[in-house]
Amino acid sequence: MTTLGTVAIAGLGLVGGSLARDLASRGVRVLGCDADPDTILAALDECVVAEPLGPGLDGIEEADALVIALPVARAAALLESVAPRLRHLRLITDVGSTKGRITAAASRLGLGNPFVGAHPLTGGHRSGWGAARVGLFRGARVFLTPTADTDEEALTTARTLWESVGAGTELIEPELHDRVLAWISHLPQSVSTALALALAGEGIAPVALGPGGRDMTRLAASSPEVWTEIALENSVFLLPAINALAERLRELGAAIVERDARAVEAFFAGGRAWAGGE
Amino acid sequence: MTTLGTVAIAGLGLVGGSLARDLASRGVRVLGCDADPDTILAALDECVVAEPLGPGLDGIEEADALVIALPVARAAALLESVAPRLRHLRLITDVGSTKGRITAAASRLGLGNPFVGAHPLTGGHRSGWGAARVGLFRGARVFLTPTADTDEEALTTARTLWESVGAGTELIEPELHDRVLAWISHLPQSVSTALALALAGEGIAPVALGPGGRDMTRLAASSPEVWTEIALENSVFLLPAINALAERLRELGAAIVERDARAVEAFFAGGRAWAGGE
Repeated sequence: MTTLGTVAIAGLGLVGGSLARDLASRGVRVLGCDADPDTILAALDECVVAEPLGPGLDGIEEADALVIALPVARAAALLESVAPRLRHLRLITDVGSTKGRITAAASRLGLGNPFVGAHPLTGGHRSGWGAARVGLFRGARVFLTPTADTDEEALTTARTLWESVGAGTELIEPELHDRVLAWISHLPQSVSTALALALAGEGIAPVALGPGGRDMTRLAASSPEVWTEIALENSVFLLPAINALAERLRELGAAIVERDARAVEAFFAGGRAWAGGE
Repeated sequence: MTTLGTVAIAGLGLVGGSLARDLASRGVRVLGCDADPDTILAALDECVVAEPLGPGLDGIEEADALVIALPVARAAALLESVAPRLRHLRLITDVGSTKGRITAAASRLGLGNPFVGAHPLTGGHRSGWGAARVGLFRGARVFLTPTADTDEEALTTARTLWESVGAGTELIEPELHDRVLAWISHLPQSVSTALALALAGEGIAPVALGPGGRDMTRLAASSPEVWTEIALENSVFLLPAINALAERLRELGAAIVERDARAVEAFFAGGRAWAGGE
């Protein structure tokens, strides 16, 4: 992070707040804004944010880079509303769980050059400034989604930014990212929530679960706001994934009803084979 | 464990083997048998099992208690075949994930008196003697399922046995146990496997997952043999649980298709409310 002196971060939730903490602790000057005034006050009090950004990202002129750490739809909307003020930036990036829309918006707004979509896989089911912490990205994978428009220097800066906080970066096309993420992240989240709701409907409390059940419902505590947006945003890839899983469950149910021990065993053995038998 | 000098354990897999290790390390004399000759040799070599039990539990006369640590159907079959040799025992118990069949079998065979069904919730997805370890039950919950037939002393002995290895015991009726376990354990297992199969179908490897996805697929590595039996054994309670979860997924899919943000948010918010917002 020798190359970025001042970084603006829009949204100081779990991801934006943790990045702000990491960067500030490395001597980067962080400018920040958040919809919640208490969050800004806390971030200033803790000397994580050096200066608040005003309405419409007022003050962004001082920054070298902008990280938009908002839910996807709001990220694209922000980009749209402040695009003319962002032309001096060496890097514009985000942290959203889907990359198709924001990448397209950046290109459409003539910001495809400094824009590099990013998606850190932090696995955090907690949210908000209160959950933000130094070290969140240590050992995490961060997908970067450059396009043909992307400036080489912006990409290098994005890599340096994430690697400076301990993450490993991986390049992937925005569309492929969204398809893969539907399976590795959005589907597991949907299933965890569905399991939580099924248990709730049966009147079973979290405390009744064993270690396996707790693993399976941990994600259910994730932010509904964030996930509503992701599910709607990535519906084209998420729906087939949900249907595929429902079909596997239907097959299990049918095998049980028919007392077909071979088919039931093939179900569980298939899962184990995938998991590598460990 | 001051009261039991010699404990016979039939089946030295993850649960039986771990219990054998714990008891032996506390000075209890452990007699053991296992379908796998290498397991018995290893258990003898490691001085965990003092004497092997012969065919038909030959040698059980020396034991004060018998722990049947086999899959449910085999546990009931063993009880059936050796019932006449078990009348001297102060405690007969098992470790199976369903309790209805084995408890009924014990009563039918005139062994309801010393029989106390047990089910330790250890959350282990590994299996076999190689996975068995001292301390597996430390802090674990163990369900005990006494019936009207159960001798008070047998129940006390069962409690002492499990508490001596660090577990907490909880009494529950066999039928209620099976219903609750369908939801808190058998459903999460089925869903984890279904997710693994869905990912396998999409060509996605375990290594592609983030922390949340890894949590959600950990159980998929569990023993297919054990789970085939549980699923068939507990079908009356598991099928409605599977259907309830599939219905929640169907609702999510429908809400996404209809672009009904409120319904999608209600889905994720409901899961979070159940999880306690953390």
